[in-house]
Amino acid sequence: VRIERDLLEKNNAVAKANRERARANRLSIFNLIGGPGAGKTALLEATIPRLGKRWGVSVLEGDQSTDNDARRIKEAGCTAFQINTGTGCHLDATMVANGLSELRPREGTIVFVENVGNLVCPALFDLGERAKIVVMSVTEGEDKPLKYPHIFRAAELFVLTKLDLQPLVALDEERCIGFARQVNPKIRTLRVSSRTGQGMDDFIAWIGETAAKATVMSETTP
Amino acid sequence: VRIERDLLEKNNAVAKANRERARANRLSIFNLIGGPGAGKTALLEATIPRLGKRWGVSVLEGDQSTDNDARRIKEAGCTAFQINTGTGCHLDATMVANGLSELRPREGTIVFVENVGNLVCPALFDLGERAKIVVMSVTEGEDKPLKYPHIFRAAELFVLTKLDLQPLVALDEERCIGFARQVNPKIRTLRVSSRTGQGMDDFIAWIGETAAKATVMSETTP
Repeated sequence: VRIERDLLEKNNAVAKANRERARANRLSIFNLIGGPGAGKTALLEATIPRLGKRWGVSVLEGDQSTDNDARRIKEAGCTAFQINTGTGCHLDATMVANGLSELRPREGTIVFVENVGNLVCPALFDLGERAKIVVMSVTEGEDKPLKYPHIFRAAELFVLTKLDLQPLVALDEERCIGFARQVNPKIRTLRVSSRTGQGMDDFIAWIGETAAKATVMSETTP
Repeated sequence: VRIERDLLEKNNAVAKANRERARANRLSIFNLIGGPGAGKTALLEATIPRLGKRWGVSVLEGDQSTDNDARRIKEAGCTAFQINTGTGCHLDATMVANGLSELRPREGTIVFVENVGNLVCPALFDLGERAKIVVMSVTEGEDKPLKYPHIFRAAELFVLTKLDLQPLVALDEERCIGFARQVNPKIRTLRVSSRTGQGMDDFIAWIGETAAKATVMSETTP
């Protein structure tokens, strides 16, 4: 337990430095967390062309192995850098610090960090992000917020994805969202289909507003 | 890194004791590993009535929080014991040792251990099982075996679930299975739908044969 605490303390110190760096460069960093196949990369693929009109966007991709996701993001017309964690189960603040040095995002832009596909461990690690976003698909079952409460407590936004598959699976959306609010009464929830575009306007609006706030904050905060 | 090695060594010692205990009691323990919503519990719900005719079955359920899955398993007519890991991201051999003491499976029976929904961390922890089974659904995307190679290397069997959703998602089954074989040429693969029952006979046959071998082995091994 003490070892884990030391590790987290060291991570938090680097996360704090990342946050200061983001403020200095007016970057809005969003940390996307969800299980494998939750639809994180597809959500980014749908987001990039929609945000790109107004915002500069770049992406840090986390995976145990392969650069498949960075390639998908680049094909969507966006700068991306892939971090491979090997046996590691999450991104930590140092990986993100190094990733930012490779990515070199322009001032006043948005950086998405797509964490390793894991609904569990990434919840514990602050990366210096503006907000954690938990991503879960309708195929995963409505009780997931109760079974994995830590990530739903840590996140500001819950994006329920693959809405186009909803008619085919048994998931009760209202119950699922109710469970998320039960563990985190302040969580915002959006329902999207990256495939059909349903709900994407709301997601883009949330990202834009939250990023704008971060920019204003960094302009007024010393 | 050294801390992690010490942890794994300690775990492996307990796993060895679990394996000896399983041999002495002619238990066949299967460790089910997959992301959240991969369909592990649904696979067990479909398995229990089918296996129950010939084999005694009981289940150890792992989750961060709730006893939802143990309740589902009990409703399927099976003895189950729930282990909650809190912030923990995997079951370890000590949790399984304690869980077996609570579960008290009869001699010559099958014990399924459903790990915490996580395709990453459980790959590293030997629980003393007869075999690891990796469970992934068709909605997760075909490149998962390449992106999470450690679990596909550690598993003897790969069960591709939710086959009834296959017509609606873009997953290329042959490619996905090819990727799994690329990281582990010896892995067996089965395709099932717990909902329609498609492929369940093959899964039951694999479990039965593997369990029978374990029973014969424990009868002939000193």
